[in-house]
Amino acid sequence: MSEDNKIILSSRELPRKWYNVLPDLPKPAPPPLDPSTQQPITPDKLLAIFPESLIMQEVSSERWIDIPEEILNIYTIWRPTPLVRARRLEQYLDTPAKIFYKNESYSPPGSHKPNTAVAQAYFNKKEGVKRLTTETGAGQWGSALAFGCNAFGLECMVYMVKISYEQKPYRRVLMETWGANVVPSPSTKTKFGREVLEKDPECLGSLGIAISEAIEDAVTRDDTKYSLGSVLNHVLLHQTIVGLETKKQFEMAGVEPDVLIGCVGGGSNYAGFFLPFVPLKLEGKRDIRFIAVEPKACPTLTKGPYTYDFGDTAETTPLLKMHSLGHNFIPPGIHAGGLRYHGMAPIVSLLCDEGIVEPRAYHQIEVFESAVTFARTEGLVCAPETAHAIKAVFDEALRCKKEGKEEVIAFNYSGHGFFDLAAYDAYFSGKLQDYDYEPRKKQG
Amino acid sequence: MSEDNKIILSSRELPRKWYNVLPDLPKPAPPPLDPSTQQPITPDKLLAIFPESLIMQEVSSERWIDIPEEILNIYTIWRPTPLVRARRLEQYLDTPAKIFYKNESYSPPGSHKPNTAVAQAYFNKKEGVKRLTTETGAGQWGSALAFGCNAFGLECMVYMVKISYEQKPYRRVLMETWGANVVPSPSTKTKFGREVLEKDPECLGSLGIAISEAIEDAVTRDDTKYSLGSVLNHVLLHQTIVGLETKKQFEMAGVEPDVLIGCVGGGSNYAGFFLPFVPLKLEGKRDIRFIAVEPKACPTLTKGPYTYDFGDTAETTPLLKMHSLGHNFIPPGIHAGGLRYHGMAPIVSLLCDEGIVEPRAYHQIEVFESAVTFARTEGLVCAPETAHAIKAVFDEALRCKKEGKEEVIAFNYSGHGFFDLAAYDAYFSGKLQDYDYEPRKKQG
Repeated sequence: MSEDNKIILSSRELPRKWYNVLPDLPKPAPPPLDPSTQQPITPDKLLAIFPESLIMQEVSSERWIDIPEEILNIYTIWRPTPLVRARRLEQYLDTPAKIFYKNESYSPPGSHKPNTAVAQAYFNKKEGVKRLTTETGAGQWGSALAFGCNAFGLECMVYMVKISYEQKPYRRVLMETWGANVVPSPSTKTKFGREVLEKDPECLGSLGIAISEAIEDAVTRDDTKYSLGSVLNHVLLHQTIVGLETKKQFEMAGVEPDVLIGCVGGGSNYAGFFLPFVPLKLEGKRDIRFIAVEPKACPTLTKGPYTYDFGDTAETTPLLKMHSLGHNFIPPGIHAGGLRYHGMAPIVSLLCDEGIVEPRAYHQIEVFESAVTFARTEGLVCAPETAHAIKAVFDEALRCKKEGKEEVIAFNYSGHGFFDLAAYDAYFSGKLQDYDYEPRKKQG
Repeated sequence: MSEDNKIILSSRELPRKWYNVLPDLPKPAPPPLDPSTQQPITPDKLLAIFPESLIMQEVSSERWIDIPEEILNIYTIWRPTPLVRARRLEQYLDTPAKIFYKNESYSPPGSHKPNTAVAQAYFNKKEGVKRLTTETGAGQWGSALAFGCNAFGLECMVYMVKISYEQKPYRRVLMETWGANVVPSPSTKTKFGREVLEKDPECLGSLGIAISEAIEDAVTRDDTKYSLGSVLNHVLLHQTIVGLETKKQFEMAGVEPDVLIGCVGGGSNYAGFFLPFVPLKLEGKRDIRFIAVEPKACPTLTKGPYTYDFGDTAETTPLLKMHSLGHNFIPPGIHAGGLRYHGMAPIVSLLCDEGIVEPRAYHQIEVFESAVTFARTEGLVCAPETAHAIKAVFDEALRCKKEGKEEVIAFNYSGHGFFDLAAYDAYFSGKLQDYDYEPRKKQG
């Protein structure tokens, strides 16, 4: 063929260390606070839910953290992932820009999420933990953790928001295929769940309730810890495998990216992609732009104040310094379920607050339009979350066309849309709605 | 990591020619017959439904057929595909055998099928065809053709068996995402469809009816031709890209396969995989065993006579010399929909009849057991069709364990199971049934 569109790394070139941005941040990251004291939380308070090694990663000042061989052995099932030139899309947009996407959809669960699920399962296993709990909405994170736990022989208990458990059986079955136990939340398995059900037996559930059940389960059993799919520093650390590979791939191709784009819900997929490039920008070596894309329905970075807030609705987590729409905010039912989170990774929030990251928000219908165009040009059908990044890529490519600039635009293709075709169906049927954010009155 | 488990080819190493086994068959392939004359069908009779270039491929005696650059450019979206060592499975089975799988699930539609859909769309386009029709059951083939047509700007009309159209909306939506039109069959779009509906307005449809509608549509419009997803020689030709890459990958790894396994419905995915190895066996250079695996519910090779029969229920195709359970046979509703075909590719049938290919059949529940084990060892969740190959791999690996043999067993991982999780759900709920084949009384 005329050109080689894919930059492939061999298994031997898989990065062997994660990159920890904490020591390189433009200012120190404000610590998480203990809500009962309003003082920085002490690690021991977290030991009931996280293993020590992950707590250490959470606060580490080491720039490079070794990836254990056992984790690399699982990563190689699908990693390194390809970095692909989207020539057909460029032609369609008639842009001088060069567009690349990092394809994270080849993992068995179909997204970037196992990069951390596998790591977390390993570190827990190493410390004698037998079982992990977590919450999941539509099932994207739950299936990734089920996969990770299966890889290391841990039991996996997933509290799945009840309405999703009933409406979307397929990710649940995927979790069961990897040996996880999945219960609809609110459930009778926890005290909190039973309380919720007593007040409202018909309760459809929410992520906030499911998180509370998963955490209660973890703190009440010695053999069990809790696992989170995004937001926290150690999760972003694990995800940097994405950006580290991308860096190598660009070096191999002799190409330097100008714009790095990704969608943000909790912030981990995009952070994994762009954080390894942050030092280049901070040291003035390269004028790269980092664009974080979110839904207008849940505009955490574009409209949420940078403040201390709980990570969950039930107020059981420490207080995190992050952009937040308020922990009581329930986002509208947009299809990009992974982006329906009130908060944002503290690392991403800080970089946004410092002007290093540019936030941007789009409506639901326009992102699906872009997703369909991407499917019809590049062939791949993406997750609704990923579609947000694609919309921004289109806009940047059209800006390049207008300005006559041959910039290199790269984005994280965070996951496939095979489990979201009901959303595409709604789009084709004209049943999608756009939502704007309306700040609620503060609850007393 | 300790070993590199994946053998990766670069885009530059993508094979540039397909392999045509016809000149190398142990005896000449019996030609398709015109049902009205019982004489070999003349190519002109097929021009109403196939473009000339595909008809020429169907009967070609050229051993190597160039793959046009335009097709290679689309193949490179996901090809070459990895050949992967299944070490965890080997350890689980405690076998000295070395197990490899060729991962065809990375294509945008998720299986091997676009290898031919893309080719067929190109050759039709080149001859001025504007529109292709086809039939599909659960949607595996329909989505591949939608993808192929979209790649070359052809319209795509898919007649989808009505019960599947209603029960399984997601593959339909995938087809629509790639721009295809999908109608439930029987439909009012064709005379045949209208006749069926008049007799039975509640008719749930069948592949046989859908094929007839798709063919009628093609013959009644000058701008339209028909496309088939399996069985015919030209389809198997296109699929040899799979086996040709596999051959290169084994050569790169310095490994020689002893057993090649694949599931068979119409025969194209397995044929694509093993045909390039056939000359080695026929020339006595290598004692490779070829094992074709089918469902006991539809045991075409293991129980069907090798005879001339129609390719479809409505008797509109030429008569093909193939193993067949009879064109009126309606297989039970096993979940491996792609294997529910009464006939078999003439090439595969001939090689089976000559003892070159060993057929084997399994029940539904045991293949799902293997699929779940594969998911829990190697991480990947396969299509129910592919699970049949996996079951045979297990049995061969356990034979090697018993005999103390370090044979190299390779199979075609023909597709992922993300659209078949309802089947896994039925398996976990104990709702799967096994079916045996009961020959029907001959219809008068």
